[in-house]
Amino acid sequence: MKTFVLAPDSFKGSLTAKEVCEAMEVGFKAARPDDLFLKIPMADGGEGTVQSLVDAVGGFIQEVTVKGPLQQEVVGEIGLLKDGVTGVIEMASASGIDLIRASERNPLMTTTYGTGQLIKACLDRGVQTLIIGLGGSATNDGGTGMAAALGVRFLDEKGKPLPLGGDFLDRLAIIDSSQIDPRLAEMNIIIASDVTNPLCGPTGASAIFGPQKGADIHMVERLDQNLAHYAMLLKEQLQQDVKNIPGSGAAGGTAAGLLAFTAATLQKGVEVVIEQTGLREAIKQADYVITGEGAIDFQTKFGKTPYGVAQVAKTYNKPVIALAGSVGENAEELYAEGIDAVFGITPGPMSLETAIAGAAENIQRTCLHLGRILP
Amino acid sequence: MKTFVLAPDSFKGSLTAKEVCEAMEVGFKAARPDDLFLKIPMADGGEGTVQSLVDAVGGFIQEVTVKGPLQQEVVGEIGLLKDGVTGVIEMASASGIDLIRASERNPLMTTTYGTGQLIKACLDRGVQTLIIGLGGSATNDGGTGMAAALGVRFLDEKGKPLPLGGDFLDRLAIIDSSQIDPRLAEMNIIIASDVTNPLCGPTGASAIFGPQKGADIHMVERLDQNLAHYAMLLKEQLQQDVKNIPGSGAAGGTAAGLLAFTAATLQKGVEVVIEQTGLREAIKQADYVITGEGAIDFQTKFGKTPYGVAQVAKTYNKPVIALAGSVGENAEELYAEGIDAVFGITPGPMSLETAIAGAAENIQRTCLHLGRILP
Repeated sequence: MKTFVLAPDSFKGSLTAKEVCEAMEVGFKAARPDDLFLKIPMADGGEGTVQSLVDAVGGFIQEVTVKGPLQQEVVGEIGLLKDGVTGVIEMASASGIDLIRASERNPLMTTTYGTGQLIKACLDRGVQTLIIGLGGSATNDGGTGMAAALGVRFLDEKGKPLPLGGDFLDRLAIIDSSQIDPRLAEMNIIIASDVTNPLCGPTGASAIFGPQKGADIHMVERLDQNLAHYAMLLKEQLQQDVKNIPGSGAAGGTAAGLLAFTAATLQKGVEVVIEQTGLREAIKQADYVITGEGAIDFQTKFGKTPYGVAQVAKTYNKPVIALAGSVGENAEELYAEGIDAVFGITPGPMSLETAIAGAAENIQRTCLHLGRILP
Repeated sequence: MKTFVLAPDSFKGSLTAKEVCEAMEVGFKAARPDDLFLKIPMADGGEGTVQSLVDAVGGFIQEVTVKGPLQQEVVGEIGLLKDGVTGVIEMASASGIDLIRASERNPLMTTTYGTGQLIKACLDRGVQTLIIGLGGSATNDGGTGMAAALGVRFLDEKGKPLPLGGDFLDRLAIIDSSQIDPRLAEMNIIIASDVTNPLCGPTGASAIFGPQKGADIHMVERLDQNLAHYAMLLKEQLQQDVKNIPGSGAAGGTAAGLLAFTAATLQKGVEVVIEQTGLREAIKQADYVITGEGAIDFQTKFGKTPYGVAQVAKTYNKPVIALAGSVGENAEELYAEGIDAVFGITPGPMSLETAIAGAAENIQRTCLHLGRILP
């Protein structure tokens, strides 16, 4: 009897990681009914992380109404894991770029306030360890909106609270954290982020991520200056020198805000998920590790799920096979990272729509056939 | 060291069987440089059979100008194998449906004369064993055109030669084979055909294959009656009772003509190729057998190349992996036929054009990855 660890990410736009696990199991089991299959839905800290962690370790998802990126009402999500004290949120569910129209993108005005509200909702539910996935934000406010939602006051020189958004931080004079939610001090916050950019400068949040959030060259300059001013005050008034910490530039500086106002630590997304799901223990007893993602190419080695899974498998010298809806350029570069083989699941030429609609069946079929040739 | 037999068919419209073999070898070798790869381009008696046999056993292809299906000039091909005495022709290269426009399809008028000319060209070159692939014909003349090209005279009751084409066989009164090329008597003719239909009747050549050659219901009836009349005369005047021989209906009755006028034997296409290429001997020493075709589905078990290859492999209990440009419905039914696994080669959603253009690369990649996981 062989043991398979099935540890894929979601196939974006098509199947959750759990559904991918299930399709894999159906396929392999048809070929090898007596083998053991450990299903561990994975994620990399980006979209699907809450769902995957809830699916992998048990728990449930709650909806919470919060302020969206443009202060409109949106329904965000918090994941509450089975242990009763671990929470998971994706910043994108409250402050994500997909919550606004492309024409509305304006990182001067967007706010992380809703993310702060999600954190508060977790505090209200007794969460002691909070995992925050930072991908996909629409914001560039240095996490000030988030902090404001948690009780920090950002005041101008007349002591008047600033409006929300990165545009106004040039008028920031006083950061008053005396009213911050006291429960935060006891909360263990893990920032799941693969970004290594600092808060400011040419590789900072505004310069690198501002443009995709709608910033033109002038906005980028203004936002960068505003964040630098903000960072200076954080240092002067709170003795928090976050400006040059690698990763502080994640999510328009939300990481900087978390680092300054809480006892958060930064960790790579997939590593957080690996730890929470106990993947390492499962892989120790595996004969084969099967991973996968909607698209796999040489970029997968920059921290995506199949890479993270393969890194663990490599430690224990376990063979790794990855499935992909689409195998991109130079997937061969992944061999050095512990991925032994990559198989596309499409049975032939077809449209993206057809491929997405048939993903479960195609995963099943590919696993069935792989299951028949693996020793 | 493992031994791989690479025995694919061509990927129609994309790669010859030899090119498929080469792409497979490139892929596997990159993963397993020390293994041995025996490349045996295959075919099933249909399109590509001449090329594959010449590629597999050595030899060359010659062009011969002959009469096309509508008596227009066409350039047909004959394959002359390395032994100097074996020839291969595809009827389709002289009398094929792809040689005329769709609007020109008319099985009353089309003739197999050009196929007879190809046979004559082989006689002229000293061929002693001739393999004739019957697929893809445009004709329904019972092989009378072919026989005419080889010296048989088809006369009306006044002793006047009939025009070419199935339309005129109702006026056939005398079949004069006294002038037939005497060299034919010494020629071993192997008809490579998977068709089991008789010459006449509801499952005969006209009823089953007439419509795809352009026959309407009235033409089918007329052609069937004409072939029955022709068969009757073959029996009466030449003592050749071919009407009900399974397979005599192949290629609009060309098989019937070959059986009546020569010492031809019928054999399944892929079996002819297996025999000629020595595939059986190669498979005996193989650890893995890799086959493939442009499209693979449950119909593959009706005599297509991967089926034939798998049947041989099954005899020796060798694992068979098939690659396909497109994996169709219920490919799982092939397990019972000795095909252990089928993998599509497309790396993701894409158009047919892109898939065809990338076929070699996609075969390479798939074999590379398979090579890495096979023991």
